[in-house]
Amino acid sequence: MTLQMSDYWQATVTTPVNIAVIKYWGKRSVSLNLPTNSSLSVTLHQDQLCTTTTAQCSASFEKDRLWLNGKEEEIKPGGRTDTCISEMKRLRKQYEEQYEDSHAVSTWHVHLASFNNFPTAAGLASSASGYAALVHSLATVYRLPYTSTELSLIARQGSGSACRSLFGGFVAWDTGVNEDGSDSKARQVASEDHWDDINAVICIVSDEKKGTSSTTGMQRTVETSPLIQERIRLVPGRMEEMERAISAQDFDAFAQLTMKDSNNFHAVCLDTSPPIFYMNDVSRAIVALVHEFNRVSIGQKRGHRAAYTFDAGPNAVIYCLRRNVKDIVNMIMHYFPQAEPFKDTYKVFYAKDTPGMMPLPKEFNEAVAKKWEVGAVRGLIHTKVGPGPRVLDVEQSLLTPEGMPKSLADEKK
Amino acid sequence: MTLQMSDYWQATVTTPVNIAVIKYWGKRSVSLNLPTNSSLSVTLHQDQLCTTTTAQCSASFEKDRLWLNGKEEEIKPGGRTDTCISEMKRLRKQYEEQYEDSHAVSTWHVHLASFNNFPTAAGLASSASGYAALVHSLATVYRLPYTSTELSLIARQGSGSACRSLFGGFVAWDTGVNEDGSDSKARQVASEDHWDDINAVICIVSDEKKGTSSTTGMQRTVETSPLIQERIRLVPGRMEEMERAISAQDFDAFAQLTMKDSNNFHAVCLDTSPPIFYMNDVSRAIVALVHEFNRVSIGQKRGHRAAYTFDAGPNAVIYCLRRNVKDIVNMIMHYFPQAEPFKDTYKVFYAKDTPGMMPLPKEFNEAVAKKWEVGAVRGLIHTKVGPGPRVLDVEQSLLTPEGMPKSLADEKK
Repeated sequence: MTLQMSDYWQATVTTPVNIAVIKYWGKRSVSLNLPTNSSLSVTLHQDQLCTTTTAQCSASFEKDRLWLNGKEEEIKPGGRTDTCISEMKRLRKQYEEQYEDSHAVSTWHVHLASFNNFPTAAGLASSASGYAALVHSLATVYRLPYTSTELSLIARQGSGSACRSLFGGFVAWDTGVNEDGSDSKARQVASEDHWDDINAVICIVSDEKKGTSSTTGMQRTVETSPLIQERIRLVPGRMEEMERAISAQDFDAFAQLTMKDSNNFHAVCLDTSPPIFYMNDVSRAIVALVHEFNRVSIGQKRGHRAAYTFDAGPNAVIYCLRRNVKDIVNMIMHYFPQAEPFKDTYKVFYAKDTPGMMPLPKEFNEAVAKKWEVGAVRGLIHTKVGPGPRVLDVEQSLLTPEGMPKSLADEKK
Repeated sequence: MTLQMSDYWQATVTTPVNIAVIKYWGKRSVSLNLPTNSSLSVTLHQDQLCTTTTAQCSASFEKDRLWLNGKEEEIKPGGRTDTCISEMKRLRKQYEEQYEDSHAVSTWHVHLASFNNFPTAAGLASSASGYAALVHSLATVYRLPYTSTELSLIARQGSGSACRSLFGGFVAWDTGVNEDGSDSKARQVASEDHWDDINAVICIVSDEKKGTSSTTGMQRTVETSPLIQERIRLVPGRMEEMERAISAQDFDAFAQLTMKDSNNFHAVCLDTSPPIFYMNDVSRAIVALVHEFNRVSIGQKRGHRAAYTFDAGPNAVIYCLRRNVKDIVNMIMHYFPQAEPFKDTYKVFYAKDTPGMMPLPKEFNEAVAKKWEVGAVRGLIHTKVGPGPRVLDVEQSLLTPEGMPKSLADEKK
């Protein structure tokens, strides 16, 4: 049971993180989060990375409130969170007007508690899963009969890429052409079952400097980069090509295009005035390793077996097929020794194996990168393509029946 | 006297290094070194950076020979050096046919000795000054009545950017349209006297990895980068804009465009498959410092006072007006402590000053970069815009009358 017909209604959901293979960079409308180009992502499995959000509404609440990882955050009027909550209340109100016997919960205030199962400091964008969870939890509380594509229109207004976190598998966000953004929404290209051996190795890379926020950065790119115009022209072709590669489960094509598009995105960042750099020397070393890995693989007529992609930060996400995870993790740990042993959730190594100490592929040119100190790559996460949002049982609520975060309530005892 | 009417003819010349502010990247013909876009450079002063080359020809020589920094190099048949020597002999032969009483020295073999006054390991492109010196020394030996623009057609075939090292001051290399390259040549935009307070601070940056050679790199960019097409379209406008800035001595415009074009060039490198990275974390830090320096300067209504540019490597060249060198050197040395004291050739510091220990500009946000260890920037060179090639006296010849390098002849004694 997720809803209770009592003096409060609530629902708890989990939503996934997604990492784009055709990147979103540039807004044609800042207020509506409308992109200058379509994008396409892989939804990562929630066993490793997810946001859990409980939404509760009650006639007794005095205002809308939000706790992120146990800490209350201000909901700024007209801000992105406020916009999403207002939009969901508006949809609920429409529903109430249509079904006269429904409860007028749209007039109630909401309490939201949200929790990420991964550290924010890891630099993994939590805004996508976060806003998707906000919208999905409210849609569930409100029993709204909307599809994920319809809800994606609202999640998008919280954070552009959040619209893609409402689906599992492989997800496109079509840029749309309407000025009001009514056709700028997400759709599932293929489910996680269609191509379930797509895995991802996330390399958490330390960075000394705080990067440019993506909102600021993409605005500056649109305003100052001449090259972004060419990017905008070429993405539609890449979207088609990527959908074909996914449909055909053609990893070689998928990998080549993923790397090209990541580099193309970082190129327009560099073409911005002042330039925006997200990749650092560690990121560059990972790029060199993946290309060397592929060079050997192509020589063995096995095609590209690994594809890096970088978001607005130095972390690398390396996509590969399940059977290649072992070689890739071993290679990364060879060059980037880890303080902690590899967390082998999916059992790709044998008990006797020591990741990082096994031989590199034959013909691999070891000199393409130097061996780094422990800590240059702070952690490795092995995950895979995964399903979309899930609704949890009431016991897993993050809020007490009084609408306060359970963790805080515990502390008071 | 540079020529002797004896059994050998010889000349010794020096040629400058140039650093482009509108970058050359991409060839439309590899064999002829024809570029996909025009470029524009500043000739640096030879007091700091130059190549000295002695060319000698004699009936007694058995083959063409070349010594670089005292070490004999093979002249590969059909290679770039061979092409330049052959072209110069061809021009001499035309001259001999025109003036029947001239000596038939075009049939003689040549010995060439070349020496750079800066370490090759510094990663400063020596091919530009090197091929310019080769061509200019032979033109002098052969007493050819050609202009520098005409000779630039030959130097270009040695190394594209060499064509720009045949002039002092500010030099354009026009891409040209002819298939045979006959209109792809250099011309002087303005002499060094036109704007003689353009100075340059070169930051020699250590790099762990060997970068992609520019010849290989630019081919790969032309073949694989979609963004280079946009770069090719936009450079003509930038050439005009840069010529206007130089003509008007408008440092603010000069600086903005120089930085934009450097970043645009590195962006197309990054858009290449596999991507090409020349800038590293130290380069990125210098970029951040220069932008912060300019941000403060703009706030003081002084406009941009510094402009970085990066060639195919991690070294930064920071252009500025002479009056700003002090602040810039102090800032760089603050973040990048040097093992050696600053070599203050042009006396921009007072005796009591300690470069690197003086206050940063007011309002400067110190946190834009961390302080690096000694060695991250291995050296600083302060230079300025300078004149074109010079012809030296016979006493400064690098070759003995027998046509052997003097240094080697010394060793044999």
